[in-house]
Amino acid sequence: MAQPNPPAAKTAITPRRDEDFPEWYQQVIRAAEMAEASDVRGSMVIRPWGYGIWENMQRQLDAKFKATGHRNAYFPLFIPLSYFAKEAEHVEGFAKECAVVTHTRLEINAEGKMVPGSPLTEPLVVRPTSETIIGASYAKWVQSYRDLPILLNQWCNIVRWEMRPRIFLRTTEFLWQEGHTVHETEAEAREETKRMLDVYEEFARDHVALPVFHGEKSESERFPGAVQTLCIEAMVQDRKAIQAGTSHFLGQNFSRASGIQFQTRDGKQEFGWTTSWGMTTRMIGTLIMMHADDDGLVLPPRIAPTHIVIIPITPKEETRAAVLEAADKLAAQLRAMSYAGSPIEVEVDNRDLGGGVKSWEWVKKGVPLRVEIGPRDLESGNVAVSRRDQAVKAKAFLKTEEFVQQASDLLVSIQQNLLTRATEFRDANTRVIDSKDEFYAFFTPKNSGKPEIHGGFALTHWDGSRGVEDQIKNDLKVTIRCIPFDDAANPPEPGTCPFTGNPSPRRVIWAKAY
Amino acid sequence: MAQPNPPAAKTAITPRRDEDFPEWYQQVIRAAEMAEASDVRGSMVIRPWGYGIWENMQRQLDAKFKATGHRNAYFPLFIPLSYFAKEAEHVEGFAKECAVVTHTRLEINAEGKMVPGSPLTEPLVVRPTSETIIGASYAKWVQSYRDLPILLNQWCNIVRWEMRPRIFLRTTEFLWQEGHTVHETEAEAREETKRMLDVYEEFARDHVALPVFHGEKSESERFPGAVQTLCIEAMVQDRKAIQAGTSHFLGQNFSRASGIQFQTRDGKQEFGWTTSWGMTTRMIGTLIMMHADDDGLVLPPRIAPTHIVIIPITPKEETRAAVLEAADKLAAQLRAMSYAGSPIEVEVDNRDLGGGVKSWEWVKKGVPLRVEIGPRDLESGNVAVSRRDQAVKAKAFLKTEEFVQQASDLLVSIQQNLLTRATEFRDANTRVIDSKDEFYAFFTPKNSGKPEIHGGFALTHWDGSRGVEDQIKNDLKVTIRCIPFDDAANPPEPGTCPFTGNPSPRRVIWAKAY
Repeated sequence: MAQPNPPAAKTAITPRRDEDFPEWYQQVIRAAEMAEASDVRGSMVIRPWGYGIWENMQRQLDAKFKATGHRNAYFPLFIPLSYFAKEAEHVEGFAKECAVVTHTRLEINAEGKMVPGSPLTEPLVVRPTSETIIGASYAKWVQSYRDLPILLNQWCNIVRWEMRPRIFLRTTEFLWQEGHTVHETEAEAREETKRMLDVYEEFARDHVALPVFHGEKSESERFPGAVQTLCIEAMVQDRKAIQAGTSHFLGQNFSRASGIQFQTRDGKQEFGWTTSWGMTTRMIGTLIMMHADDDGLVLPPRIAPTHIVIIPITPKEETRAAVLEAADKLAAQLRAMSYAGSPIEVEVDNRDLGGGVKSWEWVKKGVPLRVEIGPRDLESGNVAVSRRDQAVKAKAFLKTEEFVQQASDLLVSIQQNLLTRATEFRDANTRVIDSKDEFYAFFTPKNSGKPEIHGGFALTHWDGSRGVEDQIKNDLKVTIRCIPFDDAANPPEPGTCPFTGNPSPRRVIWAKAY
Repeated sequence: MAQPNPPAAKTAITPRRDEDFPEWYQQVIRAAEMAEASDVRGSMVIRPWGYGIWENMQRQLDAKFKATGHRNAYFPLFIPLSYFAKEAEHVEGFAKECAVVTHTRLEINAEGKMVPGSPLTEPLVVRPTSETIIGASYAKWVQSYRDLPILLNQWCNIVRWEMRPRIFLRTTEFLWQEGHTVHETEAEAREETKRMLDVYEEFARDHVALPVFHGEKSESERFPGAVQTLCIEAMVQDRKAIQAGTSHFLGQNFSRASGIQFQTRDGKQEFGWTTSWGMTTRMIGTLIMMHADDDGLVLPPRIAPTHIVIIPITPKEETRAAVLEAADKLAAQLRAMSYAGSPIEVEVDNRDLGGGVKSWEWVKKGVPLRVEIGPRDLESGNVAVSRRDQAVKAKAFLKTEEFVQQASDLLVSIQQNLLTRATEFRDANTRVIDSKDEFYAFFTPKNSGKPEIHGGFALTHWDGSRGVEDQIKNDLKVTIRCIPFDDAANPPEPGTCPFTGNPSPRRVIWAKAY
């Protein structure tokens, strides 16, 4: 499946980012063997290299959930249609995306064709999110304020029928985690909503090397049924935004719908205050679009399934055994070292292929460090080390012992470099815009004939009206990504909405988005 | 939900095992807050205590899969009906258990009722197992013998419509792992099939303290489409068998159906040799039925979410702070110790409830070690330690330091004791039976009026005919659990089938089963 090793002047991925960004994205995924489309429309197959990244994300995020007092549980995949319909905005928001189980059994019909057999009395919706099915359990578990808070999370698959699927970013089936909590007071639930957004932000920044903006969604972009949706928004290399995690304050909407009621400290009955929050396999698509380059995937070391690949170079039969032995010895030394609290993950690529072919495969898979070791290196006691965040041809020759000692620091440095690079890119493409003309120019490609990377994040005033949002979405496909929080570090600066001339309490973040 | 603390003479669970085993099982699960039925028929909600056990099983089994060269991946939940129908025996075996998605979207009909909207051109089966959908990917990935073996596993949810659901043991939706491998030769695939059965056996024995018999299924109990099904079978406390893991040699049946073909070393085209193997949340039901007692769950330490619970006893306000401080200090000391390669998991139960009430809750949850610490213990420097594998009232008074040093050994001892106990129980209820009358008597309750624990495993000759299996299943609800492997430790002993008088190559294991 992988592409052949291209001549030096070319890039490993065709097309390049600047030629055709969407196609480049597909080719990076293909070349790294991360995932592929399946024959089930909109559903993907996540291959081991992609799934290994998800396992790392899952383990690291799960540790953060547990450190903030959450435990995992598992609720049914199927939601009875009547449950699902309990919250009016919710069902309206998801109705178009539902897959519905209407039958059990398969049987052979009169024409000898296999068809669905027994109709169900009540159709079952395949969960597009689990507020309503989890709410049914919470209603049973919660009687008194003593039963609160409930702080649970679930890792599972989700189905939302997609008309325009795009691998990892928007698929009919995807993997995610969904936290669902119930609290005694509104203040506690609002705190939880913010706490989990902070967890996402920290995870994105420190693990995936993604700098994000955070804030609140406008009403039109809110989760169906929520009172408030908080989000983190990343800018990827075509300068579009990707929503990388959301945390919802649900007020009492869902507890009213599900009957989650408790006796308060002063003996009254009240509905619980609930939250929900989720992050998905979309994060993998985000990291590809942010960090990959024209030679393929570039993985932040924290979430790379393999940190270091050792490529033995064995041009002559007589030195072959010695080189392989040295490679295994080096691997053992590296595995005894730790990075970010765990052993360094090392792979030795012993396959009987040319060193160049092997090296390019690992370039395309984005492994942070590649180490070549050949007969001459055995004599000199050196290894040739290449960092994936630097030019593919760049090599540093290090004494083997020195490299073993420095390996962990090199990984730290790559992680930091990817974050710095992403932050600089984002900041260079984020602009304060206070005029309508400039705003329209910013979001319009110069050569209207062909697709072109343009735009970015615009910090622009907004009068708070839905009409402005609709107009701009219609004209430019640009939406409000978030309304930044008002805090000491980021005080609101009142001004004038350039689209209407009405007063605006603060600038908000606008962008084209996935 | 938990039951009130019963008077000393009674047991914490009502009814007792000998009174009504099936109801006792439900009550143990309820009292431990492990899981509960949901309103979706046959689907369960796995609560945090039950899910914590599954997380441990998953992590430990996953490590064994990786150590045997497997990697994880993820394939679609939905299988197009046409794929599913490719292997004739397979579709026949699962047709009755399928849930079928026929529509996407929900819409409001003319009567104002919410109903399924757009019919799908081809219905989708919710995976009851994934051979056919995974086979479609493997057919694309495999071209040459160089692409083999493929050694993948997936952790996911599975749906098989159940007419008689029983929590954990038989549910419409359950969680499992399914390994799917492709090999160049029949011999390699057969080796893999056996290797993974060995992994299951080792996991059951060393982690879940379940001694199991292993062997091959007779044709009537084989996985639909398999050439050979290997299994491990546990005996639980009502002396019935539970199939606790299966590993299938699929021959070329599924590769033929999916078109998994490769170029051999001598340039010919051949179909791949495939295997599949699975273990499910049913393992949780098995461990309950094996280890729990009339006071509730008893957890093998290896898979317990909490190893040690510390219960501060605070009868007087003036010593309260000192006791809580001592409890936290002890917890910190214990967490610094390791058991089975990981830190000891400790919980301090600081809730403002009586010590007896709290202690009984942890008894019912099956935590291996309970430690009480009160004002008098502070003076004496002692703690009162109770092992869940001993009588609930039994306490050992140990110097705190001594307990910290011994904690890991105590956990090892409990794990070993549970395995020994289970092995003795199984052996005491496994009998060589060579006459038909004795066989029928063994499997018939003495008081036919009410349910009664009886029977066990019978090692009895069989002539290999389906007729005998059908007759005995019909008469006694007894089936062949497995045909033991012929190996040096367990040589086949030819004899006579007591049901027909025909010759029999060896005794096989018969039992009633879940």
